[in-house]
Amino acid sequence: MSGTDYREAGVDIDEGSRAVELMKAEVRKTYDGRVLSDLGHFGGLFRADFPGNERPVLVASTDGVGTKMKVASMAEDYSTVGMDLVNHCVNDILVQGARPLFFMDYLACGKLSAVVAASIVKGLAKACLENGLALLGGETAEMPGFYAPGDYDVAGTIVGVVDEGRIIDGSAVRPGQTIIGLPSTGLHTNGYSLARTVLFNKAGLTVSSRPDELEGASVGEALLAVHRSYLTEMKPLLDQGLVTGMAHITGGGIPGNLSRILPRGCGAAITPNWRVPPIFGLISSLGGVSDTEMSRAFNMGAGFLFTTEEPGRVLEILDTASVESFVAGTITDTGAIEYPNRRGE
Amino acid sequence: MSGTDYREAGVDIDEGSRAVELMKAEVRKTYDGRVLSDLGHFGGLFRADFPGNERPVLVASTDGVGTKMKVASMAEDYSTVGMDLVNHCVNDILVQGARPLFFMDYLACGKLSAVVAASIVKGLAKACLENGLALLGGETAEMPGFYAPGDYDVAGTIVGVVDEGRIIDGSAVRPGQTIIGLPSTGLHTNGYSLARTVLFNKAGLTVSSRPDELEGASVGEALLAVHRSYLTEMKPLLDQGLVTGMAHITGGGIPGNLSRILPRGCGAAITPNWRVPPIFGLISSLGGVSDTEMSRAFNMGAGFLFTTEEPGRVLEILDTASVESFVAGTITDTGAIEYPNRRGE
Repeated sequence: MSGTDYREAGVDIDEGSRAVELMKAEVRKTYDGRVLSDLGHFGGLFRADFPGNERPVLVASTDGVGTKMKVASMAEDYSTVGMDLVNHCVNDILVQGARPLFFMDYLACGKLSAVVAASIVKGLAKACLENGLALLGGETAEMPGFYAPGDYDVAGTIVGVVDEGRIIDGSAVRPGQTIIGLPSTGLHTNGYSLARTVLFNKAGLTVSSRPDELEGASVGEALLAVHRSYLTEMKPLLDQGLVTGMAHITGGGIPGNLSRILPRGCGAAITPNWRVPPIFGLISSLGGVSDTEMSRAFNMGAGFLFTTEEPGRVLEILDTASVESFVAGTITDTGAIEYPNRRGE
Repeated sequence: MSGTDYREAGVDIDEGSRAVELMKAEVRKTYDGRVLSDLGHFGGLFRADFPGNERPVLVASTDGVGTKMKVASMAEDYSTVGMDLVNHCVNDILVQGARPLFFMDYLACGKLSAVVAASIVKGLAKACLENGLALLGGETAEMPGFYAPGDYDVAGTIVGVVDEGRIIDGSAVRPGQTIIGLPSTGLHTNGYSLARTVLFNKAGLTVSSRPDELEGASVGEALLAVHRSYLTEMKPLLDQGLVTGMAHITGGGIPGNLSRILPRGCGAAITPNWRVPPIFGLISSLGGVSDTEMSRAFNMGAGFLFTTEEPGRVLEILDTASVESFVAGTITDTGAIEYPNRRGE
C-alpha cells in the first residue's frame, strides 16, 4: 500500500489559497472603518457601534441559493448566484425594518476550482458593495464525494440592525390598508426543483433553448435572472414611517409569506393584475402545473409586498424615484388570503 | 404529460414543517431575555446590549462539519455533528477573546427526513445551551439531486462579542512565553477525507470495525468523538489576563494554525510529548501517512494551544479546576515552527 496524502484524498489546500488570492481585492472593497479584521483571520471583526439606534437589536438570517446552483452549473456561469444570495438575505431582514451590516458565506463543493469559487465570491462582494454591507468572512469547504463535479452549494448568514422601537412585524397591519407590490425579476431563488423538473426533465429543454414564450431570452438566462434587493426602493418609505408590514415573497409564494405578517383576524384580497414574467407561463404550460401549485411555489412576478395606510403618498414617492410598483390588493377582516387565479391571460 | 407538483419534483414542504415541530422545544431552551423573536419569523432578533464592554466588537465565524458528515451518515448517527459544529465555532472566536452570543445554522440534504434534521438541530441546541449562546435561526434546504440519500451537509455562523481593548490577536506573543495545550477528543472536525480514504477505502474497515489499536472503541465511535469546546476552561484564564495568544488547531494542524498568531520574527519549539489519541496512530500506520503529513492534516491530540507569560499560575488554575493540560513548547525568536516527529512511540 503506498502512502496517502491529503491531495490524494481529494483535498487540495493550495487551490484553496489560490481562490482566496483571486477574491481578495473584491472582498476588501466591501470593508470600511467598521471592519477591524482582514481576510484569513480566525473570525471577522465588526464594530458594534450603531449611531442613531437607541436600543439596537441585531437581526440575523441564513439562506442558500437552493438548486438555482444546478442551473448555474449547467450554464457554467457562477457569476450571479452570489448576488442572488446576498440580495435574498438583505430582503429577508429588510421585512423587519433592518439595514444590513455584514455577511458571512459558506461555499461547499466536491472538487474546488479557484476560478469558480472566486466567481461566486465576487458576486457576493458585488451585492454586498451595492447594499452597503461588509463581506466579513466565510468558509470554503472541499468535500470529496459529497458533490458532483461542477456542483457548488452556497449559503450565507446576514446580520443587520434595527432599533427596537422600529421593528416591523406586521402588528400594525389593519383591514383597509393597501398592499403594494414590487416586481420580481423571475423566480428569484425559489422553486428551482420544480422548474428544473418541468423544463429539463419533462420538456427536454436545455439552458441554451430559446422558446418563443421567453421573448428572445434563453432558458438559462431567464432562470439565472438575478434576485433583486429591495433595500434602496424601500428605504425612503421606511424612513418616513409609511410602511406597516412587509413580506419577501420566497418559497410558499404570496399565501405562504404574506400570512406570516397578518395579525389574527386579518386577511388579504389579492388582485393579481401585475405583469407575470414569461418564465412562469412557460413552466405552467409545459408542466401542466395548476395555478394553485404555481402560486404556492413561485412569486409569480411579485417579489416583495408591503402594506400602507397611505397608498397615494407611497405611489407618488415610488413614481418620482422611477421605481416600478403596483397595487396588489387590500387587507381585509376575513382572516383568509383570497388569491384568485388569473383568467383568460 | 401529467401535471407536476412540488412534491413530485422532490421537495416536501410538510416534512420541513414536521422537522421544525420536532426541534422547536430544544431550540427554545437556548433562548433568554436577549432573544426577541421566536422560530418561524423571517430573521432572528437579538438585543445588541453588551454590558461591561466599553467598545463592543462583533466577531463572526462560519464553518461546516466537512466530511465528518459522511461518517455520521455511515453510522446512521446524526446526534453529535451539531455539537461538533457549534463547539468548533465557539473555539474559532474564542481565540480572539470573544464570548459567543448566537448561532445560525444551514442544513442541506437531497431528501429531507424530519427525524434526521431534528437530530442534527437538537445537537446544535445542546451545544448552544452548554456554551450559553442562542440558536437564533437557520435554514433547512431540500435540494433533490444535490446530495446522496442519507447525506446531509451542515454549516453555521457564530456571532460573538469582545471589547475592542481585549481583542487577542497574538501581538502580545513574545519569545520565552510558554505554549500550553489542551487535549482534543480525536480528529474534531478536520482531516476526515484523508481518514476515510485510509480507513474505509484502503484498509477496508467499516464504522463497526473494532481494531485492537482503538482499545475497545469502534472506528465509528472514534471518528465521531465530539469536537470539544474550550470556552469553560479558557474563560477564567482570559478573565485574569493570563493569555497572550490562542490557536484552535483545525485544518493545517499545529504548523498551519499556530503560525497565524505569531508576530514577525517569533517561532515556536514544539515538544510533542502529550498523549496522542489512538485513532491517529491507526490512520498513520494503515495509510502509510508520513508524520509530516499527519501533523499538517490533524491536531494529533492537541486541540487548542495558548501562550502565557505565567505558566506556573496557569497550570495551577487548570489543575485546581481538574482541567487536563500539558506544556506543548516554547515561543522562540527563530521565526520558524519546529515540530519534531515523535520517535520510538
